Amino acid sequence: MANISPFAPTRLPALPVIDGVRMAACAAGIRYPGRTDLLLALFEPTTTVAGVLTRSKTASAPVEWCRAHLKHGMARALVVNSGNANAFTGMAGREAVKATAHAAANVADCLESDVYIASTGVIGEPLDPGKFVGLLAGLAENAQADAYEMAARAIMTTDTFPKLATRSCEIDGVSVTLNGIAKGAGMIAPDMATMLAFLFTDAAIEPGALHDVMAPLVEDSFNAITIDSDTSTSDTCLIFATGTATKRGAPRIARGDDERLAGFREALGELMTDLAHQIVKDGEGLTKFVKLTVTGAETKAAARTIALSIANSPLVKTALAGEDPNWGRIVMAVGKAGEAADRDKLAIRFGDILVAENGGVASGYREEQGAAYMKRAELEIAVDVGVGEAAATVWTCDLTKEYIAINADYRS
Amino acid sequence: MANISPFAPTRLPALPVIDGVRMAACAAGIRYPGRTDLLLALFEPTTTVAGVLTRSKTASAPVEWCRAHLKHGMARALVVNSGNANAFTGMAGREAVKATAHAAANVADCLESDVYIASTGVIGEPLDPGKFVGLLAGLAENAQADAYEMAARAIMTTDTFPKLATRSCEIDGVSVTLNGIAKGAGMIAPDMATMLAFLFTDAAIEPGALHDVMAPLVEDSFNAITIDSDTSTSDTCLIFATGTATKRGAPRIARGDDERLAGFREALGELMTDLAHQIVKDGEGLTKFVKLTVTGAETKAAARTIALSIANSPLVKTALAGEDPNWGRIVMAVGKAGEAADRDKLAIRFGDILVAENGGVASGYREEQGAAYMKRAELEIAVDVGVGEAAATVWTCDLTKEYIAINADYRS
Repeated sequence: MANISPFAPTRLPALPVIDGVRMAACAAGIRYPGRTDLLLALFEPTTTVAGVLTRSKTASAPVEWCRAHLKHGMARALVVNSGNANAFTGMAGREAVKATAHAAANVADCLESDVYIASTGVIGEPLDPGKFVGLLAGLAENAQADAYEMAARAIMTTDTFPKLATRSCEIDGVSVTLNGIAKGAGMIAPDMATMLAFLFTDAAIEPGALHDVMAPLVEDSFNAITIDSDTSTSDTCLIFATGTATKRGAPRIARGDDERLAGFREALGELMTDLAHQIVKDGEGLTKFVKLTVTGAETKAAARTIALSIANSPLVKTALAGEDPNWGRIVMAVGKAGEAADRDKLAIRFGDILVAENGGVASGYREEQGAAYMKRAELEIAVDVGVGEAAATVWTCDLTKEYIAINADYRS
Repeated sequence: MANISPFAPTRLPALPVIDGVRMAACAAGIRYPGRTDLLLALFEPTTTVAGVLTRSKTASAPVEWCRAHLKHGMARALVVNSGNANAFTGMAGREAVKATAHAAANVADCLESDVYIASTGVIGEPLDPGKFVGLLAGLAENAQADAYEMAARAIMTTDTFPKLATRSCEIDGVSVTLNGIAKGAGMIAPDMATMLAFLFTDAAIEPGALHDVMAPLVEDSFNAITIDSDTSTSDTCLIFATGTATKRGAPRIARGDDERLAGFREALGELMTDLAHQIVKDGEGLTKFVKLTVTGAETKAAARTIALSIANSPLVKTALAGEDPNWGRIVMAVGKAGEAADRDKLAIRFGDILVAENGGVASGYREEQGAAYMKRAELEIAVDVGVGEAAATVWTCDLTKEYIAINADYRS
């Protein structure tokens, strides 16, 4: 096993119960014996669902299943396994998904189309649903409302800590709760970046509205992080809204632009960003957590492209690992991004330190300042490219020998 | 110092003399004392020149100089320094280039605009031309026609072996020679990929024709390799044609589509590909040299994008380093490329071994076969994406802990 991330929280957040959500997990031996690798979540019949899925052209069978069934927007069960991504498994992969949905629909007493499925782990190996469909009935019996930590652990692969977050807000004066779990660690880059994130709320929001609120928030949370520029075949972010807050007087909201969702939108954005940062903070082998802001770009898309070019550059990432204030590599990465940038107006800051400006090293900058700053665990790097007003922020980590060790040996 | 690449040639190729080209190199102490870091090449007055330069938006001052002066297409001198890239050095960088051109024009007795300049090394630190302009006169006095190995060594940075190649061909029945030197090692990805390559021939070819022959060949040589996906601010490929073969009856060719250039074009393509492969074979920290071919794509550009997506994927590259036949990561990289691919027709081969076909693992494939194949030093991976007829090949290497060590410590 890899060492635990230096950014692992010393204490996991305590997630409150959400009325209408129950979960259980167990060790099904899908890949490794004795490791919790199967999660079942059950939802009240009023539960709506919305999701954002990977744009990979080789998306996994579970992703295809979710994409098809998100259209009607109701959910009764979620089945997640780790250890095998059921990706690039052909017809057998689709059959495995169907068998899983069939079994889960039986235990949840619902339609197969109300079952959502996600798988994470090795690509290209057949997933034998026989290993776990018989376990779903037992999980359903044991499902509890306070099992978030167990759930977060069950979806881990090379993650070194479970990722949990919670927020609350008011909708029309009624308090609602938002909980989330996520996994990440490798193959993390935009479109989608999570690998897996599951969000839960007791708010009552129609599926279309739920999607309209959640989907744009992905851009600045899960799609604004990158560990290694690789995009998974399985990236999935689903939000389940049980609607049980209506028992306490909360309204059922039909439109994403309903003004009563302002607080919910803000809380959801915070929840997603919190989970996204936790994913980066568990980047394989990382020693640095880096906030990278690009300003002065022509468009937000350009700012984002430049920011990702810097964040994904192996030479920038290895310099971060070496605590080397090698801002020249940042210039290189700006240059290769292909977006407009004025080399002779470029400015670079490490935290509050002005490193470069007007096409060269800043007059007051001394290498010792940069070297001292780079020793911090959490870094903020800002780059102004000097051609416009648009900005974007992404979060990333460094690239270390430990990343290589983890990924050169993952399957063997 | 890093270990010498396992792919370093046991014997360097012997480059024949090219009439009209003389070179000398010395240690100017630009960055490290006692290391040969300054090259001067002098050309006969009949020498034409063509070049392809980085498309980086933060191109270095020497690249801007070359771009401006390639227009007239004549050359008398080439000055190359290693240790400092003179990139992102603002007005001081432009002044350094001018001072270098001025000094070289003096010793070569030519116009400043006939001097070509390239710099490689650290970005963002001022290059003091005072360190070396005074040495150019001595270099000119000592310049020799048989100094290619010394020249190739002078332009090295983290390269572990000098890169030299030679070919010959006939133009209209007259034998001509093509020599080339290059450097690479890091910050190597398309647009342009060389960092630096300098090609020399005694053929007599007008500048426009020389460009028309050389530029398209870059696509399948220097632009078809990738070590770490990073694009340098300084990438430069220049070809100098002395025209001295006219003394032996060779014609002076005015048009790139002249049929008499067929043999020259082929020889030049081979020379450039040879040097490009040497650059990959000296990729920082590499243990594997990989030929990656994508077939069945919609267009050549799509095939190339998919091939580069695979070749640049950290997860693919670390699997190669770990000798792990993890073809699932190849599927992932095909998916993230964003180009059309039919997941259910995808086929993957390791050498002659059919690993995957029709959306899943091949029926006859056993993991032991893939594992045994991966132990080879030189690998051939072929991917058919099942949607069209177009193909592309790129060459790359693996991503190892040694790459991290080299790049985390390069500047310190």
